[in-house]
Amino acid sequence: MAILSALGTEVFIPVAAVIGIVFAVVQWVLVARVKVTPGAAGATGAKNGYGDYLIEEEEGLNDHNVVVKCAEIQTAISEGATSFLFTMYQYVGIFMIIFAVLIFLFLGSIEGFSTKGKPCTYSKDKICKPALYTALFSTASFLLGAITSLVSGFLGMKIATYANARTTLEARKGVGKAFITAFRSGAVMGFLLSSSGLVVLYITINVFKVYYGDDWEGLFESITGYGLGGSSMALFGRVGGGIYTKAADVGADLVGKVERNIPEDDPRNPAVIADNVGDNVGDIAGMGSDLFGSYAESSCAALVVASISSFGINHDFTGMCYPLLVSSVGIIVCLLTTFFATDFFEIKAANEIEPALKKQLIISTALMTVGVAIISWLALPAKFTIFNFGTQKEVANWGLFFCVSIGLWAGLIIGFVTEYYTSNAYSPVQDVADSCRTGAATNVIFGLALGYKSVIIPIFAIAVSIYVSFSIAAMYGIAMAALGMLSTMATGLAIDAYGPISDNAGGIAEMAGMSHRIRERTDALDAAGNTTAAIGKGFAIGSAALVSLALFGAFVSRAGVKVVDVLSPKVFIGLIVGAMLPYWFSAMTMKSVGSAALKMVEEVRRQFNTIPGLMEGTAKPDYATCVKISTDASIKEMIPPGALVMLTPLVVGTFFGVETLSGVLAGALVSGVQIAISASNTGGAWDNAKKYIEAGNSEHARSLGPKGSDCHKAAVIGDTIGDPLKDTSGPSLNILIKLMAVESLVFAPFFATYGGVLFNYL
Amino acid sequence: MAILSALGTEVFIPVAAVIGIVFAVVQWVLVARVKVTPGAAGATGAKNGYGDYLIEEEEGLNDHNVVVKCAEIQTAISEGATSFLFTMYQYVGIFMIIFAVLIFLFLGSIEGFSTKGKPCTYSKDKICKPALYTALFSTASFLLGAITSLVSGFLGMKIATYANARTTLEARKGVGKAFITAFRSGAVMGFLLSSSGLVVLYITINVFKVYYGDDWEGLFESITGYGLGGSSMALFGRVGGGIYTKAADVGADLVGKVERNIPEDDPRNPAVIADNVGDNVGDIAGMGSDLFGSYAESSCAALVVASISSFGINHDFTGMCYPLLVSSVGIIVCLLTTFFATDFFEIKAANEIEPALKKQLIISTALMTVGVAIISWLALPAKFTIFNFGTQKEVANWGLFFCVSIGLWAGLIIGFVTEYYTSNAYSPVQDVADSCRTGAATNVIFGLALGYKSVIIPIFAIAVSIYVSFSIAAMYGIAMAALGMLSTMATGLAIDAYGPISDNAGGIAEMAGMSHRIRERTDALDAAGNTTAAIGKGFAIGSAALVSLALFGAFVSRAGVKVVDVLSPKVFIGLIVGAMLPYWFSAMTMKSVGSAALKMVEEVRRQFNTIPGLMEGTAKPDYATCVKISTDASIKEMIPPGALVMLTPLVVGTFFGVETLSGVLAGALVSGVQIAISASNTGGAWDNAKKYIEAGNSEHARSLGPKGSDCHKAAVIGDTIGDPLKDTSGPSLNILIKLMAVESLVFAPFFATYGGVLFNYL
Repeated sequence: MAILSALGTEVFIPVAAVIGIVFAVVQWVLVARVKVTPGAAGATGAKNGYGDYLIEEEEGLNDHNVVVKCAEIQTAISEGATSFLFTMYQYVGIFMIIFAVLIFLFLGSIEGFSTKGKPCTYSKDKICKPALYTALFSTASFLLGAITSLVSGFLGMKIATYANARTTLEARKGVGKAFITAFRSGAVMGFLLSSSGLVVLYITINVFKVYYGDDWEGLFESITGYGLGGSSMALFGRVGGGIYTKAADVGADLVGKVERNIPEDDPRNPAVIADNVGDNVGDIAGMGSDLFGSYAESSCAALVVASISSFGINHDFTGMCYPLLVSSVGIIVCLLTTFFATDFFEIKAANEIEPALKKQLIISTALMTVGVAIISWLALPAKFTIFNFGTQKEVANWGLFFCVSIGLWAGLIIGFVTEYYTSNAYSPVQDVADSCRTGAATNVIFGLALGYKSVIIPIFAIAVSIYVSFSIAAMYGIAMAALGMLSTMATGLAIDAYGPISDNAGGIAEMAGMSHRIRERTDALDAAGNTTAAIGKGFAIGSAALVSLALFGAFVSRAGVKVVDVLSPKVFIGLIVGAMLPYWFSAMTMKSVGSAALKMVEEVRRQFNTIPGLMEGTAKPDYATCVKISTDASIKEMIPPGALVMLTPLVVGTFFGVETLSGVLAGALVSGVQIAISASNTGGAWDNAKKYIEAGNSEHARSLGPKGSDCHKAAVIGDTIGDPLKDTSGPSLNILIKLMAVESLVFAPFFATYGGVLFNYL
Repeated sequence: MAILSALGTEVFIPVAAVIGIVFAVVQWVLVARVKVTPGAAGATGAKNGYGDYLIEEEEGLNDHNVVVKCAEIQTAISEGATSFLFTMYQYVGIFMIIFAVLIFLFLGSIEGFSTKGKPCTYSKDKICKPALYTALFSTASFLLGAITSLVSGFLGMKIATYANARTTLEARKGVGKAFITAFRSGAVMGFLLSSSGLVVLYITINVFKVYYGDDWEGLFESITGYGLGGSSMALFGRVGGGIYTKAADVGADLVGKVERNIPEDDPRNPAVIADNVGDNVGDIAGMGSDLFGSYAESSCAALVVASISSFGINHDFTGMCYPLLVSSVGIIVCLLTTFFATDFFEIKAANEIEPALKKQLIISTALMTVGVAIISWLALPAKFTIFNFGTQKEVANWGLFFCVSIGLWAGLIIGFVTEYYTSNAYSPVQDVADSCRTGAATNVIFGLALGYKSVIIPIFAIAVSIYVSFSIAAMYGIAMAALGMLSTMATGLAIDAYGPISDNAGGIAEMAGMSHRIRERTDALDAAGNTTAAIGKGFAIGSAALVSLALFGAFVSRAGVKVVDVLSPKVFIGLIVGAMLPYWFSAMTMKSVGSAALKMVEEVRRQFNTIPGLMEGTAKPDYATCVKISTDASIKEMIPPGALVMLTPLVVGTFFGVETLSGVLAGALVSGVQIAISASNTGGAWDNAKKYIEAGNSEHARSLGPKGSDCHKAAVIGDTIGDPLKDTSGPSLNILIKLMAVESLVFAPFFATYGGVLFNYL
């Protein structure tokens, strides 16, 4: 039927994934060329350092002390991050094992742990695999997803902490070199994560196929566990990492910047190492797990719907693998796009950074549109049918091209709107900065209003994508739109990871006592990183909305629900309670950050008051205690919000049944996406309003500054409030909505069989 | 069928309403006894002043200068408020006339402006009135509702500005006397509003019946305009008044308290009169119109459903009037409850105020439960049927008793939860106050988290009410639950209006230069008022949620929609866009307050800088300019949010059709109720955290204070941020969700006939 044969598919997907991994390794090698050991630094100098020295104005290239200091700080950050992640993984590991057992028991119980086959849904003549084995395979894929997510996050963190000091050292040579180092390191993570996500999923499908054979329905049912595993891990990564990083950041700022009037990242501040560790465990490892989760979930949602559509029924392997093929093309496209940032053009000035990063998004989106057109033409039959709540709907191959493309372009629109509302090049952030004239209160009022306003266009973009892609190909269309938005994930993640790496690089420059000019360069990198981080969050949220809806559709199909009627009280109470959950969840995470920050403040104050010579720089602070406070707080505080998210679908599904659960999922989705977008944009805007005043690049900005003025103090308060909004509660809400949906999907057969105990009893 | 005859109903309802009005007049006469003219003050003194003087320690009772000053200030406030309301009514009047024409044209066009009758829905044999006349009557009832709402708000403001100085003067005699004056004045408004709302509705029904005769379906369809009129007026009252009051409040605080370090309500502050005017136009007139709107809408929703149920079909007048009978009983019950506050017990100390107000809620709820039981037994047949989306559902009279009662008690629960989260007697507010130790940023983080958390229980209470009342009597049950929550509205409004009156009384005491002790007494009244204001808002929001759902149900029934399926993309995009609208709306209102406050700040600063002797108190500030700034800003800024709310249903219904509109209504409801609750509780908590530090009534509070300390400054910032949240955007959201629902209901026949142009075209 399709032009691409099954064999071609079998070859193309792993090859694309391997190319991605190889490319990541090459980028890593390039980053590794920057040496952080003094001896080797001399060697670098011998190779190309001296040459550069002659043509560029560079500073301290041969100052070995600086290199030693950078290496020391890097080691401290890396060790802190590794130790935190290991501690977290221990706790999460226990949880994962318990949850794996629950999955096995719940799903196995559906047919009373019988080992006998059952008639298939799509054809009553055939015998499909028993629920017990599907339970077993679901559990296995759950663990696989969790481990892949864990490894992705961990490797990302390792690369980031490997790259931060290198970026600082390259900043001595100019902003362009530093940019390339930071961006390449981001690319290592982006490509590693998207390729490994693809290859593990692909191998899992092939291995499971050995058992399932022709029972594709059971096969892809059990594969959904992969998404659940990925997302559960991401939840703890995001929440734990988010609390860690913001407790340290808020704590460090409140005493350092506000009370003691010392600069950000000053080595005298005891919380400074914890703050830098936080960037890596929260923004890098957390974000990596989050996007991996979205990717895994949207693939699973698409696959599970496809398995009961004509692809599955006719056993059309290429058509079935269309979601994976789109991701494979995405890897190749992103690879080409990367050259535009690192090789085709060169950054010469600070103000070229943001445009360069934006160009990455535009180029990858444009190239990907072509890529999608080609793969849709090659891999899909001209006509096929898609399952649509009990009926089959006929779809043409160009229809799916539209579904994927609309997701892709909606992502770009969301990205640009986010940029408009969070970059200090535009009026919204400048207005917020201007409102600091009358103090912190008006700054907060304007910032909150900005965040609320910034949801309007993204929501319309999401709504149009949903309407178009659903009209074309039902829930499969929505899953493919989500995958379209995520298809340029490698580039997105590269840009995203670039931010915290630059942030860390600036911190290291400050702590190593490097010159003001170098700090200015890293600050320029960081300012661009703030905006791109907001763009990345916009993508994550937008795709999460589509993914959740696709998962919701898959859940409803699998649970055998035909209609989710708002007029039914069972559904409506689910809807209103679901819409409340993001508030409950945010209340927990924000309070956690607040309490942990209070503890951090007390410790930092204690150290300043009791360690003689600390303010003068003659004594060293006790970094380890601050690291411990952040670690303990985040481990302890991630449990209640985690439990809320993981238990809600189980409790609602078991006691109130699938209708109420459908309401809860829809309510959490439509409400959560708004808070997530507004929280992350409000936080980003405050951060950049502060940076706008600090940088003083326009007459208006200078009239508000300089650092330390009343306006600037008001801006710092806004920035501090924004920290938990943009880095803890906001981005965690993506996971809340996705995770509840994928969990419902995995447990759907159980809920359909035994769910609604309470209503049945009444 | 029912025990109460139709004649009995015809007598009971107007009698109850008249009793309510008479009671309001009596309360007014009692308040009027406190004289604010120097001569008469002597007379009061002659009557009972001297006697009191002998037994109580009183201050300045015979100081005529103080009385003169109070009277002057009162006149200034009253004139400012009157002039603002008149200006606003002019603009709103034009809008109302245009909208009335729209209603007539849209509804009249359904049958092409034909004057011929059509077959009735409930019986095809009978001929019902033509759409053209229903359009005419709908327009008339719309205007009646708008005028009643306008008069209610205006009278409330008049009474409040009449009572504020009297409360101040009574405060010289002690906190108990001042409390009674303030509470009685609140009761005047509460009883006047609930009685006039009832009596106008009752008369309208009877007058319309002359034309409609036996066509009750058409009769009660046209009555729904009453709810729309009431709510449209309330929208502008809330938004315009909210912007007015908060622009003045924020502006006054930012310069006065923060920059110039002068106390709140200091007469030297040029914005102080505008601030006090604002309390009356925002919190009194706005709140009055809002609750009147809720009352009118839930009555209309119940009546329109009843008209197509057995009551309407069998022309059972008493059963049909059950919603009005419940409200009548409510007036009697609230009347009895009032005596517990003013006559049965006496307030002797400041800490008895809050319990006394709380007791009002408990007593009225308990008595009302008995009242509902009696009226349900008397007015309802043992069995009857209720329309339920195309079918008729059998209901027993005790079923409706449960529906009304569950609403009533859910309201009490919401009230108490609100109190717990906003009163400084409990740990949540104390935690927020404590977080001021580390500055404004943690205060804001903790405050936002508190607001988010405070939605949990109210949402569960609303969800349970919805489930139970729907299960018993479908959408009629929900409308009756809403009316149950509002049945004790007279007491609720009395408590609510008490707050701003006390606030004003404190302002007048400060401005008149009265002693510190008297200011302390009014502060104690005010602190209790803050909490009760939050409780009032909780009630308003809770009832708005139920009302909107009932209206939504009525809309769906009338538009002939059988199912609102979330899985349909038309509905889902409505849902997600609807959930976005409260954010869009809040962004507008908050930004409006922020910009208006900036203008106010500039003007206040200008006056302090240019008027010589202002700070020294030797020159008078120019109050009028500040009043004008608030007036102009609120008139100009209320238009965009007003247009958003009023146009959305028209645009969505016309272009996208009833399915998408259903989604929008459901989305706006489930999302808006959360933001409304959290915004109003966050604001209330910040306000009381600040008051907690100022009052210094515990060791913990003293450790944070005193006034002017860093902690207190941080608390003031939180309080200022909370102002627009709790008094502008939060409470306006009630109206957003109610108004869109009632507007959809009124226009439902038009949308059902011509709606969905865009989708039809595609």
